[in-house]
Amino acid sequence: MANDWATFGADLHLEPLRQGQGLREGLMDALREAVRGGRLPAGTRLPSSRALALDLGVARNTVADAYAELVAEGWLTARQGSGTRVARRSEPRPAPRAAPRHPAGGSVTAPPAGRPTYNLRPGTPDLASFPRAAWLKAARKALTAAPDEAFGYGDPRGRIELRTVLAEYLARARGVYARPERIVLCSGFVHGLLLMGQVLRARGVREVAVESYGLDVHWELLARAGLRMPALPFDERGTRTEELGAPGETGSAGAVLLTPAHQFPTGGALRPDRRAAAVDWARSAGGLLLEDDYDGEFRYDRQPVGALQGLDPERVVYLGTASKSLAPGLRIAWMVLPEQLVDEVVAAKGTVDWVSSAPDQLTFAEFLASGAYDRHVRAMRLRYRRRRDQLVAAVAARSPGTRISGIAAGLHAVLELPEGTEESVLRAAAFQGLAVLGINRFRHPTTPRTRDALVVGYGTPSDSAWSGALDALCRVLP
Amino acid sequence: MANDWATFGADLHLEPLRQGQGLREGLMDALREAVRGGRLPAGTRLPSSRALALDLGVARNTVADAYAELVAEGWLTARQGSGTRVARRSEPRPAPRAAPRHPAGGSVTAPPAGRPTYNLRPGTPDLASFPRAAWLKAARKALTAAPDEAFGYGDPRGRIELRTVLAEYLARARGVYARPERIVLCSGFVHGLLLMGQVLRARGVREVAVESYGLDVHWELLARAGLRMPALPFDERGTRTEELGAPGETGSAGAVLLTPAHQFPTGGALRPDRRAAAVDWARSAGGLLLEDDYDGEFRYDRQPVGALQGLDPERVVYLGTASKSLAPGLRIAWMVLPEQLVDEVVAAKGTVDWVSSAPDQLTFAEFLASGAYDRHVRAMRLRYRRRRDQLVAAVAARSPGTRISGIAAGLHAVLELPEGTEESVLRAAAFQGLAVLGINRFRHPTTPRTRDALVVGYGTPSDSAWSGALDALCRVLP
Repeated sequence: MANDWATFGADLHLEPLRQGQGLREGLMDALREAVRGGRLPAGTRLPSSRALALDLGVARNTVADAYAELVAEGWLTARQGSGTRVARRSEPRPAPRAAPRHPAGGSVTAPPAGRPTYNLRPGTPDLASFPRAAWLKAARKALTAAPDEAFGYGDPRGRIELRTVLAEYLARARGVYARPERIVLCSGFVHGLLLMGQVLRARGVREVAVESYGLDVHWELLARAGLRMPALPFDERGTRTEELGAPGETGSAGAVLLTPAHQFPTGGALRPDRRAAAVDWARSAGGLLLEDDYDGEFRYDRQPVGALQGLDPERVVYLGTASKSLAPGLRIAWMVLPEQLVDEVVAAKGTVDWVSSAPDQLTFAEFLASGAYDRHVRAMRLRYRRRRDQLVAAVAARSPGTRISGIAAGLHAVLELPEGTEESVLRAAAFQGLAVLGINRFRHPTTPRTRDALVVGYGTPSDSAWSGALDALCRVLP
Repeated sequence: MANDWATFGADLHLEPLRQGQGLREGLMDALREAVRGGRLPAGTRLPSSRALALDLGVARNTVADAYAELVAEGWLTARQGSGTRVARRSEPRPAPRAAPRHPAGGSVTAPPAGRPTYNLRPGTPDLASFPRAAWLKAARKALTAAPDEAFGYGDPRGRIELRTVLAEYLARARGVYARPERIVLCSGFVHGLLLMGQVLRARGVREVAVESYGLDVHWELLARAGLRMPALPFDERGTRTEELGAPGETGSAGAVLLTPAHQFPTGGALRPDRRAAAVDWARSAGGLLLEDDYDGEFRYDRQPVGALQGLDPERVVYLGTASKSLAPGLRIAWMVLPEQLVDEVVAAKGTVDWVSSAPDQLTFAEFLASGAYDRHVRAMRLRYRRRRDQLVAAVAARSPGTRISGIAAGLHAVLELPEGTEESVLRAAAFQGLAVLGINRFRHPTTPRTRDALVVGYGTPSDSAWSGALDALCRVLP
């Protein structure tokens, strides 16, 4: 998957195909719409036709034909060596208007009306549930109370107000051993991982072990930091952390990137013995565990298991984010660091001007302190749980042979498919106007292909689109 | 000046000395306060005693003694090779509280009461004038009107709503040829320069010429991108852009970083013939001009001169920011790019998760579109102009021999001093509890020392501190 395309989320946000529409025409239409609506900015490099074909579960020629047509129409450009890109259309220079219209509610970004959006790709929460009123209330209170210096150049770690309430929240909700001075705000998990990659590389680390399934965006980021990323072995019980340090692929890793609460995307929780094995390895080998706790607040069958970080705060870097619990558009995430790393991470962050917005930090602090965040998480937990229950029931009723693996948690479920059927199901999904991904899209390059499955994100669709999406999904299951 | 100290603004925000206090004690007190208040986070590397002594205009031993005392007290640590750093104090783990208190108005960051703050360092606007009510009003309108997708992962260039109104504003207010698709939002000028450094280096550029006086933070950033930074010659009329491309230091530069509207910090405007010379060079040599328009909206003696970018939008990268006109804490800045650069800058920005907060972008868009930004800039222009007039009048009355050079613009003035007196004046200023910088602090390493002057930032002090600051300033002038 091309770099600049993949970086902003695994979700491509292509409009799904319309019923009865040919695949090529549907794809062309979706791409045109994405360019027109600004989601594919000028200059964006599109994935290769092979990669996109794999993603969409369609024949490569279908994508190649669609690309060629759009190049002919002037929407895309294709140049040897630089791939297929969104063309820059020459538009007349807009004359300055005396009273510029506020475009926030305009048609530029509004989704086309009357067209169902069946998006079941994982990675984005329900954006329609963003608590606008509560957020604005918190903003009003926070900005009114803020000292003047809050609007100045800030502490590279982030506002002390936010770090203070975040420490309390993380201790309470996730069992994180968090002190304000060990917290460093960042603008997203990827930002935190970027900083950790720089720090680890500067410390002489050459390898960061990763899980057998994960996000290529993260692997690419570590690779750019000059790190190798051997994958940990994986079995039906999950990631085999007990193999850490054993001779072989991960024998020389200086750190491990894990999703202990809810493996992404395979959906299991790291078992207690394997949590212990990871910490034991970190202690004996002097290694670090990078804990990606992206959706740890969303567990439906029991209380969430506390963060791995609580086991050994000096060996675990905890990374959390508001991108799943609230909204990615806030660009608010956080790291809780071992004491020995604080200086280096602050220095790495400080080498560029990269501080989150003070108003947002203060607003989020107030949002947390007032209990609004807890209320929102509880409401979303109910909502996502209901969605998951509906998914489980619909699949059980309409495709009894399809097993849903993984724990009842998070914003996505894994639907196991009969061997060798993933591509054909994805192709069928495309026909149904359904955007969904296969699990092999997330397979580490060295992980052998052993299963076929769909990774279904049930958080994204709006309420109005959900039943249609579920219906389309059931239609393509075997 | 040490890197991680300098990066977040040239302004060190040290509390000034109290009247009658010894220099060493005052400095210790100021450093303790800065650590306690969180402005100097744990791990921050302090400047060398030599550098800080130069900055404050005090003897090196004074700083060295203060550092040693604070190391003994446990506030700082000194280790061979890693310099003097703010220590990490071990604090007991705070017990999670049932109802966490909102600390925004608490004492952690509030400045100590009853203590005058005489801060005339340049770089920070009047934070007390941040238009909180108008900003909140814009936030309410923007967040209410925003489409759901605004809260999702965004366009790497920034929200289309903001780029659209920004294009209109920049055309109207600064004569910038700006189209939304050529605008890329960034989190500050430094972020924009970082992206440009990456792009230029990737294009094979080895040298970016800079002005003879400027900010070391910018030079360090270009150096980290692998670029050399020869300084352009400078005469009493300003930066000699006509020397661009001539054999010598800047003969092979691929780009030039300029502050045409108001040279920072020497305070002149780039003359028309030298504007033309810069553009001519860019055209003939295929070079790029990087226009840092940090305070272009603040001109007091006439209408602001339009941006250089208007002369040749294909050869000038325009960089603007809300950090001086509104507040640095917003982390909102923008680049207007030549068409040929858009793809590369977007790709560079996209290699990391670096998107400004969507609520802030939408709020700023509404703030611009509603006219609130124009009103705020007009109000601040009056305010800063009044400050400057008061400064000019006070200096004329109390130090008739001191000439104020530079144009009536921006947030700082340059007070020319008799040859060889800069250090002693700075030392006297420190005694008066006055934080101010000398012009030689901003001199490029290869620029010969030819003048003594103070760079006085009149934007920062609160109204209550202003007359005291002005009085202290006049007392130290010859």
